[in-house]
Amino acid sequence: MEKKDNGLDNATWAEVLSEALPYFKQWVGKIVVVKYGGNAMLNEELKKAVMDDIVLLSTIGVHVVLVHGGGPEINNMLERVGKESKFINGLRYTDSETMEIVQMVLTGKLNKEIVGILLQKGGKAVGLSGVDSGLLRAKKIEKDGTDLGYVGEVTDVNPEILLSLLERGFIPVISTVALGEQGDDSRYNINADTAAAKIAVALKAEKFVQLTNVPGVLRKVDDPSSLIKRIAREAIPSMIATGVISSGMIPKIECCLEALKGGVPRTHIIDGRVPHSLLIEMFSDRGIGTMIMNE
Amino acid sequence: MEKKDNGLDNATWAEVLSEALPYFKQWVGKIVVVKYGGNAMLNEELKKAVMDDIVLLSTIGVHVVLVHGGGPEINNMLERVGKESKFINGLRYTDSETMEIVQMVLTGKLNKEIVGILLQKGGKAVGLSGVDSGLLRAKKIEKDGTDLGYVGEVTDVNPEILLSLLERGFIPVISTVALGEQGDDSRYNINADTAAAKIAVALKAEKFVQLTNVPGVLRKVDDPSSLIKRIAREAIPSMIATGVISSGMIPKIECCLEALKGGVPRTHIIDGRVPHSLLIEMFSDRGIGTMIMNE
Amino acid sequence: MEKKDNGLDNATWAEVLSEALPYFKQWVGKIVVVKYGGNAMLNEELKKAVMDDIVLLSTIGVHVVLVHGGGPEINNMLERVGKESKFINGLRYTDSETMEIVQMVLTGKLNKEIVGILLQKGGKAVGLSGVDSGLLRAKKIEKDGTDLGYVGEVTDVNPEILLSLLERGFIPVISTVALGEQGDDSRYNINADTAAAKIAVALKAEKFVQLTNVPGVLRKVDDPSSLIKRIAREAIPSMIATGVISSGMIPKIECCLEALKGGVPRTHIIDGRVPHSLLIEMFSDRGIGTMIMNE
Amino acid sequence: MEKKDNGLDNATWAEVLSEALPYFKQWVGKIVVVKYGGNAMLNEELKKAVMDDIVLLSTIGVHVVLVHGGGPEINNMLERVGKESKFINGLRYTDSETMEIVQMVLTGKLNKEIVGILLQKGGKAVGLSGVDSGLLRAKKIEKDGTDLGYVGEVTDVNPEILLSLLERGFIPVISTVALGEQGDDSRYNINADTAAAKIAVALKAEKFVQLTNVPGVLRKVDDPSSLIKRIAREAIPSMIATGVISSGMIPKIECCLEALKGGVPRTHIIDGRVPHSLLIEMFSDRGIGTMIMNE
Amino acid sequence: MEKKDNGLDNATWAEVLSEALPYFKQWVGKIVVVKYGGNAMLNEELKKAVMDDIVLLSTIGVHVVLVHGGGPEINNMLERVGKESKFINGLRYTDSETMEIVQMVLTGKLNKEIVGILLQKGGKAVGLSGVDSGLLRAKKIEKDGTDLGYVGEVTDVNPEILLSLLERGFIPVISTVALGEQGDDSRYNINADTAAAKIAVALKAEKFVQLTNVPGVLRKVDDPSSLIKRIAREAIPSMIATGVISSGMIPKIECCLEALKGGVPRTHIIDGRVPHSLLIEMFSDRGIGTMIMNE
Amino acid sequence: MEKKDNGLDNATWAEVLSEALPYFKQWVGKIVVVKYGGNAMLNEELKKAVMDDIVLLSTIGVHVVLVHGGGPEINNMLERVGKESKFINGLRYTDSETMEIVQMVLTGKLNKEIVGILLQKGGKAVGLSGVDSGLLRAKKIEKDGTDLGYVGEVTDVNPEILLSLLERGFIPVISTVALGEQGDDSRYNINADTAAAKIAVALKAEKFVQLTNVPGVLRKVDDPSSLIKRIAREAIPSMIATGVISSGMIPKIECCLEALKGGVPRTHIIDGRVPHSLLIEMFSDRGIGTMIMNE
Repeated sequence: MEKKDNGLDNATWAEVLSEALPYFKQWVGKIVVVKYGGNAMLNEELKKAVMDDIVLLSTIGVHVVLVHGGGPEINNMLERVGKESKFINGLRYTDSETMEIVQMVLTGKLNKEIVGILLQKGGKAVGLSGVDSGLLRAKKIEKDGTDLGYVGEVTDVNPEILLSLLERGFIPVISTVALGEQGDDSRYNINADTAAAKIAVALKAEKFVQLTNVPGVLRKVDDPSSLIKRIAREAIPSMIATGVISSGMIPKIECCLEALKGGVPRTHIIDGRVPHSLLIEMFSDRGIGTMIMNE
Repeated sequence: MEKKDNGLDNATWAEVLSEALPYFKQWVGKIVVVKYGGNAMLNEELKKAVMDDIVLLSTIGVHVVLVHGGGPEINNMLERVGKESKFINGLRYTDSETMEIVQMVLTGKLNKEIVGILLQKGGKAVGLSGVDSGLLRAKKIEKDGTDLGYVGEVTDVNPEILLSLLERGFIPVISTVALGEQGDDSRYNINADTAAAKIAVALKAEKFVQLTNVPGVLRKVDDPSSLIKRIAREAIPSMIATGVISSGMIPKIECCLEALKGGVPRTHIIDGRVPHSLLIEMFSDRGIGTMIMNE
Repeated sequence: MEKKDNGLDNATWAEVLSEALPYFKQWVGKIVVVKYGGNAMLNEELKKAVMDDIVLLSTIGVHVVLVHGGGPEINNMLERVGKESKFINGLRYTDSETMEIVQMVLTGKLNKEIVGILLQKGGKAVGLSGVDSGLLRAKKIEKDGTDLGYVGEVTDVNPEILLSLLERGFIPVISTVALGEQGDDSRYNINADTAAAKIAVALKAEKFVQLTNVPGVLRKVDDPSSLIKRIAREAIPSMIATGVISSGMIPKIECCLEALKGGVPRTHIIDGRVPHSLLIEMFSDRGIGTMIMNE
Repeated sequence: MEKKDNGLDNATWAEVLSEALPYFKQWVGKIVVVKYGGNAMLNEELKKAVMDDIVLLSTIGVHVVLVHGGGPEINNMLERVGKESKFINGLRYTDSETMEIVQMVLTGKLNKEIVGILLQKGGKAVGLSGVDSGLLRAKKIEKDGTDLGYVGEVTDVNPEILLSLLERGFIPVISTVALGEQGDDSRYNINADTAAAKIAVALKAEKFVQLTNVPGVLRKVDDPSSLIKRIAREAIPSMIATGVISSGMIPKIECCLEALKGGVPRTHIIDGRVPHSLLIEMFSDRGIGTMIMNE
Repeated sequence: MEKKDNGLDNATWAEVLSEALPYFKQWVGKIVVVKYGGNAMLNEELKKAVMDDIVLLSTIGVHVVLVHGGGPEINNMLERVGKESKFINGLRYTDSETMEIVQMVLTGKLNKEIVGILLQKGGKAVGLSGVDSGLLRAKKIEKDGTDLGYVGEVTDVNPEILLSLLERGFIPVISTVALGEQGDDSRYNINADTAAAKIAVALKAEKFVQLTNVPGVLRKVDDPSSLIKRIAREAIPSMIATGVISSGMIPKIECCLEALKGGVPRTHIIDGRVPHSLLIEMFSDRGIGTMIMNE
Repeated sequence: MEKKDNGLDNATWAEVLSEALPYFKQWVGKIVVVKYGGNAMLNEELKKAVMDDIVLLSTIGVHVVLVHGGGPEINNMLERVGKESKFINGLRYTDSETMEIVQMVLTGKLNKEIVGILLQKGGKAVGLSGVDSGLLRAKKIEKDGTDLGYVGEVTDVNPEILLSLLERGFIPVISTVALGEQGDDSRYNINADTAAAKIAVALKAEKFVQLTNVPGVLRKVDDPSSLIKRIAREAIPSMIATGVISSGMIPKIECCLEALKGGVPRTHIIDGRVPHSLLIEMFSDRGIGTMIMNE
């Protein structure tokens, strides 16, 4: 194998290595739960860079769990089978037929696509849904008294299967379909961000990372230079009150809070569009994106 | 818990127990691969009895792997999305769109249904497809020079994920979609019987069982009393030549041969319609169905 | 090995197995102390059936300890050496010469006979007396102020040797001669039922079984159909008061109470004359005989 | 605990300790089989000194196995039950009734007496006969074509029970009654010296010691100063030919040869009448008695 | 190897062995810290006898740690390099140049000499100074307000390196140069007796022995027969008050108290001039020298 | 801890990390022997950078052994004690007095200085000389028939102490004074480069690195751009013949050959003056300096 030269000088190498290497010991054998999905998943190039990072982390002994959401493919499939959505009080109702399609697309298609990419890059990826070995149990939720069908909230996470797989060096990839509670064989569609946070808690993860398509929490929307690098958990209510955290960022922050309350020491909202942002976050002093942590 | 009485007398109990108990030691910690599918899977009552047996075996420490096939639901789904089958030289062609539907139904629906039933009965079932962690690798097959699309034959089985799961007491449930060979990210539809035999070989299983909807190999078709209880591997060619083994039984016998050649000591074709036939086979001197074995 | 058929139909097999198998997991690795002796030991045919059960239990991993009593052979030997019994206040007095004969017959003859039968059936039986490694320590008892010689009551059980043997898969067979307390090198004759109960306590056994020659506790003597299947520990005093439990049954029940008080969760009086009654008790919902338990 | 002074000066202490301590490492965890019996066993004082040594060796972690013979008590008992010996061609015939008495006295009386003494001195002694767990298997021997009844020679030693006990720090004490070969439930009387040698071989013992009532092999009978301290295995035939080894010493030497051939590196004939001769042999450069060894 | 005879009779051997062997079990695997130095180290003959004992103890599995002091060689070296001592208020001042010489002689010469002798005798000796892996940390002491330069008192003992070495059967030999506290890279000269006591405490040693050139604590100086064999910790203040313990003995006793307070159960002041005094102390009832212990 | 920013952009970070991280797995748990000495050791700044790297490597689980040479301090000390060097045939003669000074300076001063620096940086450094536990054994060498006194060549390396320390995470720092062969208690001065190579072989090291004050092997002396990055072992003789490798580089190359022949797969001559050159060598594709390897 001929050694290549990437043009960086020795001083740069020495600088990065001296700073990065101590992080190794900190992360080896630790559990990191990464939520990845939505728009961040659409760009094929970026998707591959994310998968590169996950395989690299797994290779050096970090225990990574990848939780993914759905995307436009669910709607495509619903359209294709001619399924029309029913709306109740303006909210979309998930009937059992829709739920079946959701499960097939998430678990039978998207999940296996991600597993395939990780495998190609050398990662020992295993795809699971929340149904497998009772990983995720859920019950129906109602919004403002409206029955939305098979939309659920997680009531129990059984992490045994994940711990068994991580211990053997596998990378679990999870689609967020849940089984009903004991005695209820229904399947429920679950919000992937919340599920990921709850999985991080159940696994006593060291880190919970949401890979999004924004740079993090910005003081001024549209001004990336206004990025807030660290937020203490206590500061969040006032930041919501003053509108610094608003709209789409609120549910993401709430997932971080859920994980923090459950004992995950560090949670992150980082930009999946920056190549290798996961590595930069984990192996540099500077980090990337916004970290929300217990002070 | 009040003890119930099932009407059998003590002598019967003593007789069955004295005969059955010694088998325990023989099976605990051993791997048994069960192929279950097709028509045997349609009757809901029977399906539950089969699942009962699998959970029971797992509970007492037998390592059971369940490989399932598809069924009419694949065609239903193809119809539903308005997919018409293309035929080449009279053989059905599996294009990539069809393959995607096959994968979604097998892995995203049927597999999770079986997992759900096993979970309800207390089994720690985990559903996998052949894609997960590269369990099944395949290449395209051609029949008589005709390209049939994404129909493949297994070229490699990586049993690591199965061994990891079995060791922790999980019951792997496998849908037989395979990944292409290294560098080919395509998915292939695989014959479930053959895949099960190859998995049994890769796992160095002690037993390979095909749960079918016939009593076993019959000397006279339609006369169950003509059941042949044991067949030595060497006797098979002449039995095919003389027509004792014919038509639909031939591929099943060939799967047994594949497993025997690979080192699985005992292979079975048994009747999934007899309740608890799996237990009777494994815990009685008489057995059930037909056993094909190296002399 | 040609498989034989015992005439029972598949449904019966399936029924017994489905019920019996779950008990397997419950008993493997657990300690069961069986007291066997007196008249139940006289019929050679029944004795072999009992030994069959014990070897079978040991084979599947149950830790069985067999405690045996003496029988007519002690008197035969005493007669043979021309030893006349001395009586004090109408009670037989065990002088040191008699004690020596008792020890020789119990430990040197009966114990080794039982060990021989178990060995022939494939059990790894090891015969011990209470003297070995100080298993049983005793002190002299007096009945109503009368010195009965070397008749003792157990003051200490040292189960170390039994635990060592059980862990390695041996079946300890114990004759109930005890050593005096520290500093007293005398041997004492001990009631086998009581010794067995105390051994069960010292071993933290899961079950204490007295194999007798009655069906269990009967509401009406001589009417087997009046068998009481379960008795709560609390109910016993009133059952003695009302005479339901009387005469020869009282000491057996008292041994059960001794074991229950010492933490053995379940105690049994079962009929050694029913072939394989031990298996039926342990591997069926119905059980056999009378179970006395903490509610 | 007030320290006592035994009158020896520091120089003597230092000398003995400097020489003895290095042997410690050599013997800890090693197996030593000691044959003890016959006349050496009659003097109660000496018997206790021997038992002291055995307990001491066991305490510091040497794995000692004690094999004992019978003695005059067998004849006493035979007389007592009025059993007359039958002689065939001038040789005593052991009928089944005699064998039963032999077993009872050896296993039920003498064995437990030795166990009792060792227990009093703090040793964890466990008495076994050759029957237990099939330790010794034997077949009938005939001398010059004469059937001598239940007199046997060892055909198999199963050391599993001994190894299990030694590993846990117990001292096995063995009476040399053997079980017949597979399928023969008879008991055979066995020569204790030979049995001990075979047990030493089966245990891969480091040392085989016969505690006798002579100083060892003497060049001139009755002249203790003519003791031969070491004999090479090869020298023995000529020593027998020239009469240096004769009469009663021959069978003892043959037992040593049996052990040496079976791989025991060192065998000894030492004087059980010298107090603590076992310790002197094992923890001094000088040794005691005669050592027969592979050159 | 021809066995030699040292002229002692069997009875003497038996007596010493019977008394000494039980001590084995007591000491194997236990940690004994021996301080050796000063005048006791000057006689080459005695030095070798001490080293013999230490190797012997190590061979049989006692974990010995040897702490040594300096001697006249330090002054020789100081003279040789022409270093004149500075005195402040009549006390010698250790400047950095002197400290460097002290370290070189102790660690680079004396320590390696002792290691060399132990190696020759078969001991796996490893020489360390208090600097290695931060074994000894110290801070400057002042006597009566006078700065004495690099003379220190131990503030922390990190026994990790010693425990690692002992576990592997090495004999650590320690020169008592200490490193400054965190952030202070100076070296300090440390009193070897005190350092040894502190090391014994940090190692939770079973015994702390000072090998000196006196017989122990004497009631009348110069009368060895007035040796006090045991002193209870509580008795010491009054013995100092009454002058029984005086002058040079006081600091030695204070080291014993330091060790006793830190949890070492037994401390000893013994005569390094009596050959093998260490063995006599550890393997006889009589002991040697003076033992100071918590009553 | 406030995170700092070192001015490098994210892309640079991502690039270095993606390349460096895979090396991590390759080095963790592997043994690397580093020779450091001579002029490379004089610059205090560079010395600290080297020590930084060694502690960093140790922290992430690489097993580093540091072998150091002497330097001008030996001559300083010899001068200081007024020791004049004797020359024989123009070669310096090491008499025993000189050898003592060498040992004191190397082991008692330089070794402990390095240990001190590593400790300050958080490494668990332990200083050893070749004498400790018989690590290095040597015999006298003669050059051209001239006796040079206590100058030796290594005849045996006993790596046990190093393996014990590495396993526990310690960093052994070795001064290359050797003990004579069995029976010879002399000390010998040893060439540090050769000793390091032999230690690498004995440890089955993965890498042997000589930290020097040249960039590596240069095609044209004084032209760093003519650095030869890789040399196959086979190419070396011709490179010496043609003068590419000459003068001071020859002994360094010969040490590499010694290590290669002994089974060390990779050997390196790198520039200790480039900060963090050790990290750059081990964690980049480009490497640094010259690697000599078996093809």
